[in-house]
Amino acid sequence: MQSSATVVAEGHLIDSQLLTGIFDTVIERGGAFEVLRFDIGRTNDEFSRLALKVSAADDSALAALLEALIPLGCHAAHEHDAIVRDTDRDGTAPEDFYSTTNQRTQIRIGGHWLDVDRQRMDAAIVLVGERAVCRKLRDLRAGDRVVCGLGGIRVLPEFRDRDRGDFSFMSNDVSSERRVEVSVTRIARMMTDVKAAGRRIAFVAGPVVVHTGGARYFARLVRAGFVDVLLAGNALAVHDAELALFNTSLGVDLDAGAPVSGGHRHHMRAINIVNRAGGIRAAVDAGVLTSGVMFECVRGSVDTVLAGSIRDDGPLLDTITDIIDAQNRYTEALANVGIVVVLSTMLHGIGVGNMLPAWVPVVCVDINPAVVTKLADRGSSQTIGLVTDVGLFLHQLAAQLAPE
Amino acid sequence: MQSSATVVAEGHLIDSQLLTGIFDTVIERGGAFEVLRFDIGRTNDEFSRLALKVSAADDSALAALLEALIPLGCHAAHEHDAIVRDTDRDGTAPEDFYSTTNQRTQIRIGGHWLDVDRQRMDAAIVLVGERAVCRKLRDLRAGDRVVCGLGGIRVLPEFRDRDRGDFSFMSNDVSSERRVEVSVTRIARMMTDVKAAGRRIAFVAGPVVVHTGGARYFARLVRAGFVDVLLAGNALAVHDAELALFNTSLGVDLDAGAPVSGGHRHHMRAINIVNRAGGIRAAVDAGVLTSGVMFECVRGSVDTVLAGSIRDDGPLLDTITDIIDAQNRYTEALANVGIVVVLSTMLHGIGVGNMLPAWVPVVCVDINPAVVTKLADRGSSQTIGLVTDVGLFLHQLAAQLAPE
Amino acid sequence: MQSSATVVAEGHLIDSQLLTGIFDTVIERGGAFEVLRFDIGRTNDEFSRLALKVSAADDSALAALLEALIPLGCHAAHEHDAIVRDTDRDGTAPEDFYSTTNQRTQIRIGGHWLDVDRQRMDAAIVLVGERAVCRKLRDLRAGDRVVCGLGGIRVLPEFRDRDRGDFSFMSNDVSSERRVEVSVTRIARMMTDVKAAGRRIAFVAGPVVVHTGGARYFARLVRAGFVDVLLAGNALAVHDAELALFNTSLGVDLDAGAPVSGGHRHHMRAINIVNRAGGIRAAVDAGVLTSGVMFECVRGSVDTVLAGSIRDDGPLLDTITDIIDAQNRYTEALANVGIVVVLSTMLHGIGVGNMLPAWVPVVCVDINPAVVTKLADRGSSQTIGLVTDVGLFLHQLAAQLAPE
Amino acid sequence: MQSSATVVAEGHLIDSQLLTGIFDTVIERGGAFEVLRFDIGRTNDEFSRLALKVSAADDSALAALLEALIPLGCHAAHEHDAIVRDTDRDGTAPEDFYSTTNQRTQIRIGGHWLDVDRQRMDAAIVLVGERAVCRKLRDLRAGDRVVCGLGGIRVLPEFRDRDRGDFSFMSNDVSSERRVEVSVTRIARMMTDVKAAGRRIAFVAGPVVVHTGGARYFARLVRAGFVDVLLAGNALAVHDAELALFNTSLGVDLDAGAPVSGGHRHHMRAINIVNRAGGIRAAVDAGVLTSGVMFECVRGSVDTVLAGSIRDDGPLLDTITDIIDAQNRYTEALANVGIVVVLSTMLHGIGVGNMLPAWVPVVCVDINPAVVTKLADRGSSQTIGLVTDVGLFLHQLAAQLAPE
Repeated sequence: MQSSATVVAEGHLIDSQLLTGIFDTVIERGGAFEVLRFDIGRTNDEFSRLALKVSAADDSALAALLEALIPLGCHAAHEHDAIVRDTDRDGTAPEDFYSTTNQRTQIRIGGHWLDVDRQRMDAAIVLVGERAVCRKLRDLRAGDRVVCGLGGIRVLPEFRDRDRGDFSFMSNDVSSERRVEVSVTRIARMMTDVKAAGRRIAFVAGPVVVHTGGARYFARLVRAGFVDVLLAGNALAVHDAELALFNTSLGVDLDAGAPVSGGHRHHMRAINIVNRAGGIRAAVDAGVLTSGVMFECVRGSVDTVLAGSIRDDGPLLDTITDIIDAQNRYTEALANVGIVVVLSTMLHGIGVGNMLPAWVPVVCVDINPAVVTKLADRGSSQTIGLVTDVGLFLHQLAAQLAPE
Repeated sequence: MQSSATVVAEGHLIDSQLLTGIFDTVIERGGAFEVLRFDIGRTNDEFSRLALKVSAADDSALAALLEALIPLGCHAAHEHDAIVRDTDRDGTAPEDFYSTTNQRTQIRIGGHWLDVDRQRMDAAIVLVGERAVCRKLRDLRAGDRVVCGLGGIRVLPEFRDRDRGDFSFMSNDVSSERRVEVSVTRIARMMTDVKAAGRRIAFVAGPVVVHTGGARYFARLVRAGFVDVLLAGNALAVHDAELALFNTSLGVDLDAGAPVSGGHRHHMRAINIVNRAGGIRAAVDAGVLTSGVMFECVRGSVDTVLAGSIRDDGPLLDTITDIIDAQNRYTEALANVGIVVVLSTMLHGIGVGNMLPAWVPVVCVDINPAVVTKLADRGSSQTIGLVTDVGLFLHQLAAQLAPE
Repeated sequence: MQSSATVVAEGHLIDSQLLTGIFDTVIERGGAFEVLRFDIGRTNDEFSRLALKVSAADDSALAALLEALIPLGCHAAHEHDAIVRDTDRDGTAPEDFYSTTNQRTQIRIGGHWLDVDRQRMDAAIVLVGERAVCRKLRDLRAGDRVVCGLGGIRVLPEFRDRDRGDFSFMSNDVSSERRVEVSVTRIARMMTDVKAAGRRIAFVAGPVVVHTGGARYFARLVRAGFVDVLLAGNALAVHDAELALFNTSLGVDLDAGAPVSGGHRHHMRAINIVNRAGGIRAAVDAGVLTSGVMFECVRGSVDTVLAGSIRDDGPLLDTITDIIDAQNRYTEALANVGIVVVLSTMLHGIGVGNMLPAWVPVVCVDINPAVVTKLADRGSSQTIGLVTDVGLFLHQLAAQLAPE
Repeated sequence: MQSSATVVAEGHLIDSQLLTGIFDTVIERGGAFEVLRFDIGRTNDEFSRLALKVSAADDSALAALLEALIPLGCHAAHEHDAIVRDTDRDGTAPEDFYSTTNQRTQIRIGGHWLDVDRQRMDAAIVLVGERAVCRKLRDLRAGDRVVCGLGGIRVLPEFRDRDRGDFSFMSNDVSSERRVEVSVTRIARMMTDVKAAGRRIAFVAGPVVVHTGGARYFARLVRAGFVDVLLAGNALAVHDAELALFNTSLGVDLDAGAPVSGGHRHHMRAINIVNRAGGIRAAVDAGVLTSGVMFECVRGSVDTVLAGSIRDDGPLLDTITDIIDAQNRYTEALANVGIVVVLSTMLHGIGVGNMLPAWVPVVCVDINPAVVTKLADRGSSQTIGLVTDVGLFLHQLAAQLAPE
């Protein structure tokens, strides 16, 4: 252990398991630690403070170790300014660029700590005048001033707040052996709280919402004002239109539960009809579409973005076929969102998860525990998973928030 | 193809895919066939009739082929009597004993076809006086007259009856992408029909019924008379008692959705309390148990059997710890049952499936598609699978059959 | 039953369960049938021939019924020419356009039956000079001559060929309780047969191929010439490049199985490095990428298409971000493909399934039975599902086809 | 907050997340805490020491809170002796009996701390002479001296030892997106270490081991001495015998992968043949069984226990049909076991998990992530889950430990 450095951290280090994470990280990577000072928060409200000497085999191992400690809220006791380098080529960064996490981040410039704007994961940090801002690699332009290396960067991990009410009380376990009704009540309360706080509610929804009979309940939630943003793919809108026009979903009559004659063509006919009308809004205006989720979203001025994918039929004219455009539109729509509910779509759910800062709670509802696990993987304490039937979940949620 | 024989079959051979199965079986096993005669049923109500010449490489291959055709309803055009041999040792059969399927079976004795009683799969057929009856190997006694070989045995496969209403209309696909509410309505109607026909309804239930908050709805179904038979394990009763005594399930408060202090011991305390009272019925009589599924089953005189398993805690005094006793009690309880609903228990569900004749419909509800697939595997057209949340399913079912 | 018509069909009507399907369809839709004539194929090789009178409540119900019988190979006994109408608007069809299945289709023009080219599902049929061809709605242009209605259209369903070797012998059941090694041997044989027949092999692969350690085996298959076409998304290439550059996958060291320091940034650094080099091919040429799946694909001139999606990081310069372009490129790459193997990607697997005619066999390998079920849903007898670990599957397959 | 008490704890409180758990527990249950003293372990090897004042609304809430802190290693700063009461009725305990966890436990008697023997969860603690021992409720007899209440009880939670090698380095995440080959190498090393330490290896195996083709590899592991204890059900032995006698598993030829004629009866014939021979050992001695897992277990004197269940066919004479006997035999067989590997059996896996103390590591291999999650739920840091194909897993494990 030839090389060593001292790092400091403060906050709810015990409650949020940061201290455990810090010790684990040092040992797992072959380092050693010595606690120089640890002042424990005496009560639930007080912060703890840590000064830790970290040692590693050589300077390179130490650098790797310190890098790994950044997302856990550690930074050098004696900080220098961040290194900033110009990128030389559009769409790329210098090789040693700092790639962000989704946690609140600060960089040190001119001796001062600067908050980073538009926090998201997997971005570069660019200096724009006096501001620091997250920017995707593809949006970098030659000459952009990009933060590199690891010095002068401070991450302020989200603390798991045991007092922040419903969210923190919900189990993080991914299990189908839970009483869903309790969770629905809490999610309803969280949604009401978000609205009361003047923030917006986003839903990310897959076509299973329609297949499982949830569309009518979801439409009621839209009508009642509980959906400010809808992020989905082409398929949700297609099957919603199929339901509105033919009362089928993938050719299955949703009241009878049986396939109807020629029903397998209904989704293609629905696409043709909507596109002949000039798209969803035009179809609503022309009286072609008179019910359903998309109809309510048009009427309620919901911020709706449909992103294309390789499996799309059609697609509808409203579907954004370029995925970079779609990602940009998704990101814009997520501004001022206070909670995100993901309904049965791993694809769009992961897409949205990539864009969110760590402090926006995400509720992921899916009947497949593997999907819930995968989405939860990305944002630890940020994500609540609910393994249940999406149609029945929406039935319960609408019964609470938008009773008939 | 040196050896050949002629078999005949009649019935809804097309609709029930028996003819496809017969042809497939011959080809897959390396044989050849020639249709000697096929009279197709001209309308939906008429039977079809087949005479088929089957050829194989040698007599042994032919015998194997003919054996494989028996469950598909084929039998030799020119039948002899069944071979009957005494077994020489308690609990075992002659090596060439005929092992039954769960389809209606007849054996030819003295030139007459005799219906086999107590039809179930994986049994031997024993002649008892003038009757033929299915008997488990373990129940055979030295001297029992056991049907052996393959001659003189006729299976009458269940025809898939396209007109028999709700059951046949339900999809056999195992998918979570269905509207469960339609299925609930149909199952409710089937249950009402079974009661109207004077037959009984059996539920096979796992503890997930309690964990998912379904117990209160299930209790309402019991109270309303829609549960004649309850087949379960120790755990259902333990967690139901825990809920009744402590309002928790595995230590989780079912209203708050959060674990309560000391809750992990509640199930052990519940066992101790019930057993101190002398068992479930005694606990109900003594006013110790005053609510829940088991309470309603005692009050409603539901035919209840709890079978033990290797993972049991306790167990409760009511749990039958010897699995042969338990199987026998399950089998008796299934007499005159017109429909079986399996709620989230692969173990007991497969156990019950083994005991049922092919003509009793089984509805299997589980959030795990693999469980539904596995149970459905056993009884093809006999089983309907529903991939959904069991707690919410029971909520919907109780809302239809036993509204508050 | 006021309206009736006579339809005819011929082929392996029993073996392929077409006759069962025809009868079921009539009854389920409230119609009635009378078999006018049925000549059964006497042996496994002979076709059967059916003439069926179909009745329904009124002309509209009859039309719906006849439409539902088309995909089952039925057509009117007395056929007229197909109706052809000009479309009046780019990107859309007349409202009554015929939407295709993926089965071989013929249309009757000028009294002659014309084969439809480029068969795929969910397309319109357009007359182009003397030819009929499938065309996506979005590719239609005002003035295109589009087949409408149902008359003069004949579908020739794929017959399940019980003699066509390995494929037909593999179980269609979606179960994890199978011996995978047997299936691997058969898939290997099918791949060898496809190559011997001068046709191409396409793989559709998700990033799980890399995460599960399958990349090295898959690379060996590429090197040995068993991958002619690779259809994937951005993530496969990103994680393959991460593995080549850092020996990690999502930051996990694939030899040690543990996360490495700073590893969560490796995939972003890999993107940056490859894009700085000018894309995958340029990175290979420049010696930046020297191993892995993409490296072998470049060296082996594999027809590789990467389609973008909403969850992409980067993306790599090689990823096609417009999904319509991507679909077109996928479709082109699938020309002359004799077998498709889908490895752990529902998204791209469904995308490819939409493009394929019914006679190209698809093998779908995934550890999640729900994915296999969903993909198999789309192409009945066309799809083989294998529920297993993708990394270990590739290990076994490479051991057979490309031993070290 | 009217009532308060002081508790103390010591150990790896940070690393093992005990301190987080203690704080969470107090807050979640509506209490408050004040850290009186916290000496942090300065390095990885040093213990931390905590003195904590805990407050609650009233004495009853405080008692509940203190109870909840016991499993986290907290005990009263000023301890009294444990309360011991005679039970008055066979098979039951006093109502306030202390129900154990699976962690090391001590009780204070006569001012001295006494280690509890035969530690397991869900038991009572009985004083027998000078010793304290865990005993199942059903084994209590009137007059037994049972520990009651919460005073004088100390739990020493297992510390997660970051240096104890392979086990602690394996990921606890339940994901199928991992490279299984790395895990196999580690499990092989752990097994070798256990043998070297003079301890025993137990396997708990379901019939899927046979269905997936793993039996031949498992038999090789037995032959090589890596299986000291085999805990299973009737089905494993039945299908193993079926494989040995007919080369099929559930009627499917394991080399051809296709069902064979009459194969569905093979398992019943296998039962009959083995039982006619007088059971498994007799069948081996008589040369009836000459290969397979059970054959190797008999030859290798493996401590084998087959527990009955409600879904058993037969059962074999060797199967213990009373589940209390079976539990007792399982428990005895687990003496001196250093590692347990659970192969695809939730039923027997949970059964075994209930019997084990917290310090025996358990590896759970299953293709269904829900099973792995459920088993891991029970023993947190004790269980490693592996989501993969069991047949291929055994192939890899045998290749490392018992090469042909």
